[in-house]
Amino acid sequence: MSELTHFNAAGDAHMVDVGAKEISHRRAVAEGVIRMQGRTLDMIAAGEHAKGDVLGIARLAGIMGAKRTADLIPLCHPLALTHIDVALEVDRPQGAVRCRAAVETRGRTGVEMEALCAVQVALLTIYDMCKAVDRGMCIDAVGLLEKSGGRSGHWRRPS
Amino acid sequence: MSELTHFNAAGDAHMVDVGAKEISHRRAVAEGVIRMQGRTLDMIAAGEHAKGDVLGIARLAGIMGAKRTADLIPLCHPLALTHIDVALEVDRPQGAVRCRAAVETRGRTGVEMEALCAVQVALLTIYDMCKAVDRGMCIDAVGLLEKSGGRSGHWRRPS
Amino acid sequence: MSELTHFNAAGDAHMVDVGAKEISHRRAVAEGVIRMQGRTLDMIAAGEHAKGDVLGIARLAGIMGAKRTADLIPLCHPLALTHIDVALEVDRPQGAVRCRAAVETRGRTGVEMEALCAVQVALLTIYDMCKAVDRGMCIDAVGLLEKSGGRSGHWRRPS
Amino acid sequence: MSELTHFNAAGDAHMVDVGAKEISHRRAVAEGVIRMQGRTLDMIAAGEHAKGDVLGIARLAGIMGAKRTADLIPLCHPLALTHIDVALEVDRPQGAVRCRAAVETRGRTGVEMEALCAVQVALLTIYDMCKAVDRGMCIDAVGLLEKSGGRSGHWRRPS
Amino acid sequence: MSELTHFNAAGDAHMVDVGAKEISHRRAVAEGVIRMQGRTLDMIAAGEHAKGDVLGIARLAGIMGAKRTADLIPLCHPLALTHIDVALEVDRPQGAVRCRAAVETRGRTGVEMEALCAVQVALLTIYDMCKAVDRGMCIDAVGLLEKSGGRSGHWRRPS
Amino acid sequence: MSELTHFNAAGDAHMVDVGAKEISHRRAVAEGVIRMQGRTLDMIAAGEHAKGDVLGIARLAGIMGAKRTADLIPLCHPLALTHIDVALEVDRPQGAVRCRAAVETRGRTGVEMEALCAVQVALLTIYDMCKAVDRGMCIDAVGLLEKSGGRSGHWRRPS
Repeated sequence: MSELTHFNAAGDAHMVDVGAKEISHRRAVAEGVIRMQGRTLDMIAAGEHAKGDVLGIARLAGIMGAKRTADLIPLCHPLALTHIDVALEVDRPQGAVRCRAAVETRGRTGVEMEALCAVQVALLTIYDMCKAVDRGMCIDAVGLLEKSGGRSGHWRRPS
Repeated sequence: MSELTHFNAAGDAHMVDVGAKEISHRRAVAEGVIRMQGRTLDMIAAGEHAKGDVLGIARLAGIMGAKRTADLIPLCHPLALTHIDVALEVDRPQGAVRCRAAVETRGRTGVEMEALCAVQVALLTIYDMCKAVDRGMCIDAVGLLEKSGGRSGHWRRPS
Repeated sequence: MSELTHFNAAGDAHMVDVGAKEISHRRAVAEGVIRMQGRTLDMIAAGEHAKGDVLGIARLAGIMGAKRTADLIPLCHPLALTHIDVALEVDRPQGAVRCRAAVETRGRTGVEMEALCAVQVALLTIYDMCKAVDRGMCIDAVGLLEKSGGRSGHWRRPS
Repeated sequence: MSELTHFNAAGDAHMVDVGAKEISHRRAVAEGVIRMQGRTLDMIAAGEHAKGDVLGIARLAGIMGAKRTADLIPLCHPLALTHIDVALEVDRPQGAVRCRAAVETRGRTGVEMEALCAVQVALLTIYDMCKAVDRGMCIDAVGLLEKSGGRSGHWRRPS
Repeated sequence: MSELTHFNAAGDAHMVDVGAKEISHRRAVAEGVIRMQGRTLDMIAAGEHAKGDVLGIARLAGIMGAKRTADLIPLCHPLALTHIDVALEVDRPQGAVRCRAAVETRGRTGVEMEALCAVQVALLTIYDMCKAVDRGMCIDAVGLLEKSGGRSGHWRRPS
Repeated sequence: MSELTHFNAAGDAHMVDVGAKEISHRRAVAEGVIRMQGRTLDMIAAGEHAKGDVLGIARLAGIMGAKRTADLIPLCHPLALTHIDVALEVDRPQGAVRCRAAVETRGRTGVEMEALCAVQVALLTIYDMCKAVDRGMCIDAVGLLEKSGGRSGHWRRPS
């Protein structure tokens, strides 16, 4: 038998039963980057305060992406999210745009997947908008930073 | 004026006009990995030939994710895809599962975003299914490997 | 800093945190009209009690549209609606069909947008079904009539 | 006036008001079969423990289909499901694959439609994957087996 | 190796490559019934020409369901449908409502799944609207009647 | 029999058969306004060049809304759009924000509904973002400005 909870006793995939879990305040923060050429980063930075706001569009795509999580990830529970915040910043030393998404709910299961989905969709949107000038961009280091709420309590990524 | 084609002359976002482009056979291949603990990798590898088939579920999620691209990425054109193939393999030396997605269409615009979406959704699905045993997994090196078709022709990632 | 709550302290869009709001019975009523030629109005009125029921189809589209609100409006919270009622009536003196939608939930945030979405989708559906005979139809006066529930209490449109 | 609750006093369709119903543990189980040629059944049975896992894919499609119920069925309430389990088995005496789906929620309305949707989408997915070898397959006997929770209490299909 | 075309050479699911198929006029007709108590059938029949039009709502749900096929069935190709017609009739001798759906496209792959989806969603919608008075209704005999277009040509269900 | 093309010979709704229409370059332009208090208009105008960019978000929502048209409007054909442009401007004399959307395709049927959907979703998004400060905003004068392509040729709204 698998230790993986998404399989039932027969080894078949199911959507885990969370009905007996208590409703609690749950929060998750995820992060990731998209690496690119310096010239592409300059274009994005220029648009932040002027015309051509790539980051504003990616932020909105990330927020909307978080709301589509249960449509995309087969065994995710649909959840009524209470807060989504997606922050994007140009990180010159890394030659990257960094995305951090925080998602919250009052519910029976966590929102790690929603935070990760927000990051992935925001970074993909940056790829889409800049691909004509820089096809080799690379999405990296997408993972969970911390989560809280629920039985397993607070978890923070070891640094 | 931005060099980024997703902004019009006024600097506002638009969905680029592809009406004058010719219909051609377009193909894109994208790749990425999810790194994890050796013990998590063992569980996934064990399920491949038995109960608890994480990779089979992730593959299907990736295929379905490719079809949702235009819903997720704000300025993407809706496209009638003609082929989607998502391959997943356990890469022990890297401590990772590697995902490669190939997408094809006969259309007026490329399918890079569809291939990248397939990779991201497949890798996120692995995260979802294994997060109870390994919260620190990390999605890395997601990018385009090659594309063909259309005016810009064949592009291959420099190695 | 903006007074608009959909922007965070940095001026960036976010989905407002409603986690601390209490669950209450929330209700919103919205209204709007679609103006058209007398002859088009006759066709619609004829179908109400016979074949070609434009209003029945528009009513259903409005109900289904309310359920898609969080997919369409970027910063809307997904909500479990408890009641949707869409009423459509031929208003001969105005040369219009009038739509009124009432939506209810037990939740942490209001349903104004769901009621407005229902009205817009119902009126657009009438446009779609009659456009072959009357391309100049015009959707007008779409707004909120009243709302109740939540901290801001009861609001009624001044007459 | 109709006895059918999905019509209001005027005889028009509405989404029934469930706001006054209490939140309870609700569960529904639905079942159905897809009949096919013995040779098709052999192919499916062969894939269960090897390559070409039709049933694994149909199971996942059924789970995801349950989550789309409120999008598909016009007057269904959107619900936060807490558990979905879809079981598929080869039934040789009947020359069929049998699907049974159990869905649960803690909510104000039942999940019969979600369980039926899961069965239908799972069986349609089998049709899709085998149609090239057996176009005459037939989906039969799809109905509710039992439901519990809510004011109407426990119901079980008479045998 | 499986004879089932939805698996690639490795035995893994993929979306079949239809890029080399020619665009042709493709059509599919599917059928099915929902059996119920005579009293339920009477209510539905009464609504056809008056208030409480169950069949009108089911017809619309079927049409919209056909358009969602590629979202629901994992390996289905997204298609631009050119025609959808859903017919519903009360079949008193059978104690059932009969649904027949015809779907057409000009495309590279057939529309059997779209026709079957239309039937299933229409019949499920009838179940939803009548379940409060007749929980034991049963969906039966859902299958393809005929298809035309494409390399495999015309197929008609043997009678 | 109805003159309305969305009903078949029996008077029942269907999705019109466009299979015999020729593929042509089709374009539609729609327009509408949202009226509001001068103070609300000031806030929006202030955000255009600084933090709190309401119009940027509404523009993106309109573009994405156009892509969802066939999901929302029951009898609309799914279409592969080739261009979407949504323009928003503050119209001080009218005390309104004005939205104009242009949509194009190469296809068998027109894109009027897509252009109207873009306008409605963009204006609803403005309502959403400003409703906390101005609940009485009103959406007005939403209609088609012009369309071209297809058998019916060029149409322009009479001024």
